[in-house]
Amino acid sequence: MNINSSYINFPASYLFSDIAKRVREFKENNPNANVISLGIGDVTQPLSSSVIKALHSAVDEMGTAAGFHGYGPEQGYDFLREAIAKNNYQDKGIDISADDIFVSDGTKSDVGNFQELFSADAKIAVSDPVYPVYVDSNAMAARAGSFNDSQWNNIVYLPSSKDNDFVPELPKTKVDCIYLCYPNNPTGSVLTKQQLSVWVDYAIKNKSIILFDAAYEAYIQDENIPHSIYEIEGAENVAIEFRSFSKNAGFTGLRCGYAVVPKTVVGYDDNGDKYLLRDMWNRRQTTKFNGCPYIVQKAAFATFSDEGKKEVSSLVSGYMASAKKVRESLKSVGLEVFGGEHAPYIWCCTPNNVPSWDFFQLLLDKANIVSTPGVGFGLSGEGYIRFTAFATPENIDEAIKRIISVL
Amino acid sequence: MNINSSYINFPASYLFSDIAKRVREFKENNPNANVISLGIGDVTQPLSSSVIKALHSAVDEMGTAAGFHGYGPEQGYDFLREAIAKNNYQDKGIDISADDIFVSDGTKSDVGNFQELFSADAKIAVSDPVYPVYVDSNAMAARAGSFNDSQWNNIVYLPSSKDNDFVPELPKTKVDCIYLCYPNNPTGSVLTKQQLSVWVDYAIKNKSIILFDAAYEAYIQDENIPHSIYEIEGAENVAIEFRSFSKNAGFTGLRCGYAVVPKTVVGYDDNGDKYLLRDMWNRRQTTKFNGCPYIVQKAAFATFSDEGKKEVSSLVSGYMASAKKVRESLKSVGLEVFGGEHAPYIWCCTPNNVPSWDFFQLLLDKANIVSTPGVGFGLSGEGYIRFTAFATPENIDEAIKRIISVL
Repeated sequence: MNINSSYINFPASYLFSDIAKRVREFKENNPNANVISLGIGDVTQPLSSSVIKALHSAVDEMGTAAGFHGYGPEQGYDFLREAIAKNNYQDKGIDISADDIFVSDGTKSDVGNFQELFSADAKIAVSDPVYPVYVDSNAMAARAGSFNDSQWNNIVYLPSSKDNDFVPELPKTKVDCIYLCYPNNPTGSVLTKQQLSVWVDYAIKNKSIILFDAAYEAYIQDENIPHSIYEIEGAENVAIEFRSFSKNAGFTGLRCGYAVVPKTVVGYDDNGDKYLLRDMWNRRQTTKFNGCPYIVQKAAFATFSDEGKKEVSSLVSGYMASAKKVRESLKSVGLEVFGGEHAPYIWCCTPNNVPSWDFFQLLLDKANIVSTPGVGFGLSGEGYIRFTAFATPENIDEAIKRIISVL
Repeated sequence: MNINSSYINFPASYLFSDIAKRVREFKENNPNANVISLGIGDVTQPLSSSVIKALHSAVDEMGTAAGFHGYGPEQGYDFLREAIAKNNYQDKGIDISADDIFVSDGTKSDVGNFQELFSADAKIAVSDPVYPVYVDSNAMAARAGSFNDSQWNNIVYLPSSKDNDFVPELPKTKVDCIYLCYPNNPTGSVLTKQQLSVWVDYAIKNKSIILFDAAYEAYIQDENIPHSIYEIEGAENVAIEFRSFSKNAGFTGLRCGYAVVPKTVVGYDDNGDKYLLRDMWNRRQTTKFNGCPYIVQKAAFATFSDEGKKEVSSLVSGYMASAKKVRESLKSVGLEVFGGEHAPYIWCCTPNNVPSWDFFQLLLDKANIVSTPGVGFGLSGEGYIRFTAFATPENIDEAIKRIISVL
């Protein structure tokens, strides 16, 4: 059997697996160290009571003949698709219907899988630094070219740094697909409606597709910042949106997200004939996915109840209070700090511009703090470090103290 | 954006979605009909009490700060991987270790995704009739050639029918990958150890990979029939095995399965250098999957307790009693019937050899019974119909009566 050769000469491992391994080794060598993680973007607060209640109730149903649910629809149950369409779109004046919503086991799967619908030679653009899954999933599909000097030669990287206020420039050449993530992981930056329209206009003009990762929209604090790309005119013709219950309702261990694939987004075959991406995604999901667990979908549904909404809001406020604390504390000792205002990520220049991995290792060794080295997200992340605001409030306080002590 | 052209000229929809649509239309036109499904292989019995108990307990954990679980390991929690390795392999004398086990959201995802590791020009063989996901996932990856006369011209189909006692012949040309499913879906047939060794020997000789779908192993009633392909000498060098909690413990709506990828299975690059498929699958899963929910893994773990094992055994016995009933009843009225002895599927020649879809429609219209047309699984399934034994005992009795009444 010949293998998919795209896996050869691939960077050895997925960034967060790599970090997890370093941390594991550190803990083995320092069994008494009290390591605090501001690394991977994983929540720490327990599930809210309306979610717990919904889970217990759905579990009870599954134990009865009348309430048992076997295979569900691959696209998700109607009750959840309708609640998503109503609460997150229609009530906000956005024309998205339930059958545009595809419920999944999470955004990592969705953004990893969606590239399957594109031609093998589709040209991909990503902002740099970037969530590694966008690039790696395309590299695995032999769409990224060859890997040299930490970059793939067939991916268009769009630098995003303090030099351009974290607003990447449009690609200089025509690209077929652009991955955008706002509020941004890892930089915590956001785009205004006007800034986002520039991208939508580019996509319309170039018949490109925007894959818009909105996993962090719940953290937006300013009404001029769009929660959904469909707030931008014309986006319904060129954009797919990905959302998740992970970062708002704490579902990182429950696994539920969704892709919005409007019936108006088309791709083209070699003759220029149009095809609906919605139909293609439906075919992909019905063939290679068997639905998100019923009990998890009931839990997600509970987040749209009045109580559920309050609980989500309280979870987000808690994490944002921590983000503010990290941001302000590091600023007050002279570090150059970005993000943390509309996102749970604080993006920070390393002191004296030391390389990201060096500062990562220093923080681990001397302060027993796990962070994420900026360069792990791409070359333009060199000289930065990412902190998350997801630790418990006590750990946030302790972590700030320890970080400052080793600067 | 140019699309993946493999989606064009593709059969319109996934078989079971297609059937679901026909049934939905029938129900809309006949709102009072009491339709019984012996169609898709979905269980109907509620989850067992040890599973329900484990779910409640894990849900309670998730509601506390100390017991909350966020992102889990993409490969599955060690407690489940170890229980699987011990109970299903090591205790049966098979040398599979926990780190060969990759827990997932189900076998449909695993068998759909695994082909990603293979080269674009890998030659694929499937038995015919066949579970559609094997073929469709390769077709989507442009590995199947073009679709003419209900078959893909680059897939090697291995006919399996009453003419060869449902034991397909080895491919006449060298193939890179063979999908085998035993106990078989849809025919219900099995292979003895000796018959399965023929395939393992072929794979060793030809450096092929066998993807062995063992989702129905719990239904085997004869100790000479292998539950795992690793009971065959040498299989650990050439075979990947897929298993599921769906058909034994009733997890179709909970979603949990696993792939076994031994550290001894290799693929080759263009220079003939060896690569471990285990490492490649690990990279695939860590990049595009974020783990099976913690609460679901705890539920799966509960099936290995003493009580859990008894419950699984009782569920399987119940379905097998139904299978026997369907099998014997249809035989007694003169139908030619196969399967149903070591599998929950009864594979039945249509009366007077009428086409599968005609008999499917007759059963739906006249008896209000949902079945699966044999030809939906491949050309060699023409003239057959598949019944499942998963309906409730009452529905099985009623369904048998109704089927017989329209013969």
